[in-house]
Amino acid sequence: MGKEGAKVWFIPDAYLPSSGSGAKYESHEAICVLNTSNINANLRLTFYYEDRDPLQDVLVNVGAKRSKHIRLDHPEELGGVRLRRDVPYSIRVESDAYVSLQYSRLDVTQPNYALMTTIPYFEG
Amino acid sequence: MGKEGAKVWFIPDAYLPSSGSGAKYESHEAICVLNTSNINANLRLTFYYEDRDPLQDVLVNVGAKRSKHIRLDHPEELGGVRLRRDVPYSIRVESDAYVSLQYSRLDVTQPNYALMTTIPYFEG
Amino acid sequence: MGKEGAKVWFIPDAYLPSSGSGAKYESHEAICVLNTSNINANLRLTFYYEDRDPLQDVLVNVGAKRSKHIRLDHPEELGGVRLRRDVPYSIRVESDAYVSLQYSRLDVTQPNYALMTTIPYFEG
Amino acid sequence: MGKEGAKVWFIPDAYLPSSGSGAKYESHEAICVLNTSNINANLRLTFYYEDRDPLQDVLVNVGAKRSKHIRLDHPEELGGVRLRRDVPYSIRVESDAYVSLQYSRLDVTQPNYALMTTIPYFEG
Repeated sequence: MGKEGAKVWFIPDAYLPSSGSGAKYESHEAICVLNTSNINANLRLTFYYEDRDPLQDVLVNVGAKRSKHIRLDHPEELGGVRLRRDVPYSIRVESDAYVSLQYSRLDVTQPNYALMTTIPYFEG
Repeated sequence: MGKEGAKVWFIPDAYLPSSGSGAKYESHEAICVLNTSNINANLRLTFYYEDRDPLQDVLVNVGAKRSKHIRLDHPEELGGVRLRRDVPYSIRVESDAYVSLQYSRLDVTQPNYALMTTIPYFEG
Repeated sequence: MGKEGAKVWFIPDAYLPSSGSGAKYESHEAICVLNTSNINANLRLTFYYEDRDPLQDVLVNVGAKRSKHIRLDHPEELGGVRLRRDVPYSIRVESDAYVSLQYSRLDVTQPNYALMTTIPYFEG
Repeated sequence: MGKEGAKVWFIPDAYLPSSGSGAKYESHEAICVLNTSNINANLRLTFYYEDRDPLQDVLVNVGAKRSKHIRLDHPEELGGVRLRRDVPYSIRVESDAYVSLQYSRLDVTQPNYALMTTIPYFEG
């Protein structure tokens, strides 16, 4: 069995739209994490902006053999941090265990929503 | 000729929407597999959740020199397994032959549907 | 300067929707190629299906220092080959020069269209 | 700590739609850059076309520990260069510092917009 992931992940295109008009969903971004290992993964998130210093040391835990879709519009999933909406930003995720990541955005600003996803750039 | 693929693939962001209102299509996810080799590929899928142990050992076969778009909303393509809808999950795919994978989702919850796709993270 | 690309690319999720109702665009897939080198790139495409042998040796040329967005719904861009619509398939692209590739799909089956894109898996 | 990025990035599928009918947004492409390093990153962009020589040496700066979402429809973010609309093209980005990149497109040609994103191919 290989490493089953990497330890540092980079998401240059992050953007949290203002809440939209969707009937079922609301606009959001998610960092989706897969931890196939036998140990908990402790993630440290850093948020980078265009016009100010980074927001550091946001901690998230992903259990062993678990999936976690971290909603970036839910402060309670980010240790109480409320991210700014409608501004461009970027995200760096560092984990003490090997994990795989995927970043997705759902935008419901208009009645019919739009989706996008990618596997971020990674190292280590 | 190279390996023509990898043996372990990771899809952190999986989500099977409840069937939507599309006239032609229904909401679905697909794991699309390309096997350019001369041998059959035996795939073993594991599904990871946020709140329970993984669902293991779902087997799928992809013939030599064949494409297969595995529909995750079709239990008959997953050995009878019916995946839970409207819950976040992740997927690990292991193959005994080198294959290439792509993950896509079509969401028709609203009248005009949304599409997303990515090449998953891979190893081996 | 590096290689500036790779020589073999794999697109597992290909699907050419029937022509849709868009006012400005029609449904299509495109293999977008960037050739930053000083030589022409000769591409050889193979199309893989679920239920039949591959369709081989479709040739496409991309000039030195040129971009080319190959429309898969245009037989004249594929040496006269007309691809089947509404069936899942996969694509392998081999080039004699290093190129970079991106695969995109625009679906206008419904009035408001959907977009998806990814960098394919690559080797060599 | 690793390199935290790469120095050359390739985006084969670029296309800047004519301005659309969205109420809140206008159609655009963005090259999103994350520079986690302690030095400024000087980016040099080259635009490749199907029918003419490349447009070279467009310079963009991304500050240390900053995010920048470069809007390709804003000449003032490209040193005054106004890119052609409604034509297929490709982009090569070279940086003197390690950065990570993501390419996204928002198309509002129709009332409900479409989104796509990917991490480009990279080297170095």
